[in-house]
This record gives sequence, structure tokens and C-alpha cells, in this order.
Amino acid sequence: MDLRPIGVFDSGLGGLTCVKKLIEVLPNEDIIYFGDTGRVPYGGRSRETIKKYARQDIAFLQSFDVKAVVAACGTVSTNGLGEISGEYRIPIRGVVRAAAEAAARATRNGRVGLIGTKASIRSTVYDDMLLAARPGVSIFKRACPLFVPLVEDGRGPGDRVLELVAEEYLRDMLNSGVDTLIMGCTHYPIIRDVIAGVMGPDVTLIDPGAETALALRGELEAGGALREGDTGTRRYFVSDSTEDFGAAASIFLGSHVEGDVEQISLDEILR
Amino acid sequence: MDLRPIGVFDSGLGGLTCVKKLIEVLPNEDIIYFGDTGRVPYGGRSRETIKKYARQDIAFLQSFDVKAVVAACGTVSTNGLGEISGEYRIPIRGVVRAAAEAAARATRNGRVGLIGTKASIRSTVYDDMLLAARPGVSIFKRACPLFVPLVEDGRGPGDRVLELVAEEYLRDMLNSGVDTLIMGCTHYPIIRDVIAGVMGPDVTLIDPGAETALALRGELEAGGALREGDTGTRRYFVSDSTEDFGAAASIFLGSHVEGDVEQISLDEILR
Repeated sequence: MDLRPIGVFDSGLGGLTCVKKLIEVLPNEDIIYFGDTGRVPYGGRSRETIKKYARQDIAFLQSFDVKAVVAACGTVSTNGLGEISGEYRIPIRGVVRAAAEAAARATRNGRVGLIGTKASIRSTVYDDMLLAARPGVSIFKRACPLFVPLVEDGRGPGDRVLELVAEEYLRDMLNSGVDTLIMGCTHYPIIRDVIAGVMGPDVTLIDPGAETALALRGELEAGGALREGDTGTRRYFVSDSTEDFGAAASIFLGSHVEGDVEQISLDEILR
Repeated sequence: MDLRPIGVFDSGLGGLTCVKKLIEVLPNEDIIYFGDTGRVPYGGRSRETIKKYARQDIAFLQSFDVKAVVAACGTVSTNGLGEISGEYRIPIRGVVRAAAEAAARATRNGRVGLIGTKASIRSTVYDDMLLAARPGVSIFKRACPLFVPLVEDGRGPGDRVLELVAEEYLRDMLNSGVDTLIMGCTHYPIIRDVIAGVMGPDVTLIDPGAETALALRGELEAGGALREGDTGTRRYFVSDSTEDFGAAASIFLGSHVEGDVEQISLDEILR
């Protein structure tokens, strides 16, 4: 048994979709969440900048003596996280491997789609993981840079702008004949119904955060590192004001936020 | 005559719309531009975070011994720049005053509109400056948070998504009867034709960057601080990769970028 908390970070609040799944499948674990809201979004930035920010985010979580870190951010997971993870003695998990393995299991025709930020689509990490999990699979990719601002603008099913953008982004994906689509960004499960509305009922949608939560439970079980006993506590940290945290967080967490919310300054911590 | 350069900063590359105007009206001045592309956008962030970033941006420009700093960013100009400017011995100019004065001169019916980022609209700086320039003026405000990502996605006149969003944002503004509209964000002049298409030919559109360039010329002339002689040089600095700078910058500068482009790390400079 390992009583230390699990650390989770994301460029902003989208990673709370992963926390939601972690709470469901690992209810007894303590969770420390860090959302880098002072520098969100990472999705349009360069690989080197994303790696630098990820190292700083992990350093902050390490100050809580976490037993594992989950990079809930699709952009971080696909931009150098593999290189970074070797620098630490605790496991640093992205969301790619579990999602790629779930997609490899789910596809019947061997045609898998991936949507994400520009930085995620530029990377070949998903391709590598998918081909490792299922040699010969065909991969179709499309960057959907407007989905994040549209979700953060509070748009959902029934919004004409969002539906028009979804049709534009997903038209070629639909025509490519994929039967499985990885929603490669934390924000996309929020608009799952809009994506499903374009792709149709025969395409399986994969949520990387949910798959990663399940995979982490398996790892902790196998290593005897699950925390047992009472319900875990959750602490949330952000690098910008906490003022609007509750309203924004509830979109991603799908419920009222329970636990402390604090603002920290990365500048001060890293000096 | 003052040979020192003029410093210009913005959260990203949008401020180049102001540089374009500065080059037009002050062709002999040397210009140092800093775009904080590693932390763009500022528009959704808290006032305290915006002030912190602005101080860091100004500190970087000061390392070049500039004679004046222009905060080309509408968000910075409306979030604490007045408080910050008192901390420096050189003039720190935002884009609000010149734009508000131009709008006060332009309006015939005393009804002025303002569009901008969430942070700009939350502020009352434009209200204060407009009322000072023309007591009794009525002000109508609307945040347009999707315009920046849409412009950065390369969308312009003829794009259905952009036009749909513009109609949604500007419908109430049009109905309010304004005859003058301040485009309170560096990105908006790029889609001037789309905004004009909704607002119609009788509404005067005010470009704060252009008005600020004209006002700065007047100030430098009055103070005998114009640089005379040959054409000025331009240097561009960004805090993320310079890789895509040329393509992105040409959208805002409206021409091929002439001058050096360098990446700097704010972390290192501020330590």
C-alpha cells in the first residue's frame, strides 16, 4: 500500500475530465491537480516550449511527494513526454499509450482516426503507439484547433457554430472510413455528442483520460500501491486566478468541485 | 532628436498591426518588437496575471534602452497599464487613450461601441477615457472571445464560420444604434471587412493601433524626440519558436517581415 497522492497536470482545466475518471475508478486515492491556467493553451506552442512547461509542472507536483504523475494533457503527452519521463524516479504517465491500446482493441477494419491540437497532430507518438499495438493499422489525423476555444466559450450540442466547425473538421475523417476515433484532447469528451453526431453510431469514440485512469488502476494494483480505506482527498492548484475556477471546473469535472483550490506562482516556485 | 528605439510589445503577434502603422507614420524610427508567443493569449487571464506579464515584457524592452514603450495589446492596455506606467521613467503608452479620443471625435450620435477580449470588456478604462473625451457618451460593449482563434486559424471574409460568429456577436451592437465601433483587439483590423459587413457603411470603425501610432508621432514631434535621417531598423523577438513567425507575422504586418527575428526566454532574463 502506498499512501502518497497521485499528481495530475494539464495546461489548463481540461485535465479535470481525466480527474473525473480517476475519482470514479480510484475513489480512495488522494489527488493533487495542477492546471497551468496562467499559460494555457499549450496546443499551438512549439515542442521545446511544451517540454519546458511540462518539466516545471512536474516539479511543482513533486513538491507534494506524489507516487505517480499523469500528464492529462494530450499536447504534453505527444510532445516530448517520453524523453522527460526518464528524468524522474516516479512513473510519469501520458494519455497516449492507454488510448492507442484501446483503439487498437476497438477497431474492426484497422482504420483509426485521431483528432487533437496542432501540436498533438504534428507529433508521431500516436502513430508509433498504434502501430506497436496493432501492426498494419491505418491512421487518419486532423487538427481541430477551434474545438478548445469553442468548448471554453460554453458551446455544446445545438450550437450552430460548433456544429458547422465539427462538420468541417470531421468530413474528411468520416469519408476516410475509420471505425474508431481517438478524441486526443481533454476538451473533446465534453462535446462527445457533437462529434458522435457527425461520425455516426458505428464509430467508436476513445476517451484517452478514461482509458488512462483504468490503466493506472491496473498498474497500482499490480504494484501493490493502491491506497485503501476512506475516500481520497483532492486539492486543486492553478497558476492564474482561482476566481472563475468553480464555474469552469464544473464543465470538465461534471459536478461541483469538492476540495481546496489555490493559486500558485510558478515563477516563485522555480526560482 | 532622440536616436533610441521605440519598444512595442504584445501578448503575441497581433501587435504587429500596430507596428505596421508605426512604420507608415514613423518610417525613420528603430523599432524593437516583443511578442510573448510563449504565453499568448492574455485575453482570458486575470488582471493580476496580465500586469505581471506586462511588467516582464517591459523589462525585456528596457534592456534595449528604448525611448518609449507601446503596449500594442488591447488586453494589457485595459488591465492595469495605467498603474504600471508610473513605475517607469520613460513613457509607457497603451492603445486606449488615442482610440477613445478618435471615437469621441468620430461619433455623431454619441453612441460608441467597443468589442474586445473578455479581459478588455471587463475593464472600465475605455469607459473612463471616452467619458473624459466626450461627457455624456453612451457606451455599448461586447466580448468577442472567438475572433482571435478564428483569425489565427486563417479565416477571413467569405468564411461561413467567421461570418456566423460575427453576426452573433454584433447583432445586439448593431441594434444598439452605435455609429462608431472601437475594434479593441489587435486582431480585429485583420477582419475589418467582416465586421464592416455586419455593421454596415454608416458605422465608423476605429483601429486603436493606427490611432496610437499617430498620437505617438505627435508626442515625439512635440518633444523634439523624432529620429531623423535614414529608414529605421526593426528587430522582432518572440518567447516561443521563431519557426512559424514569418507566415504568421505576414498576416498582421501585411507584408514580408524585414529585420531580425530571435527567440528569447523570459525565464532566463528575469532570473
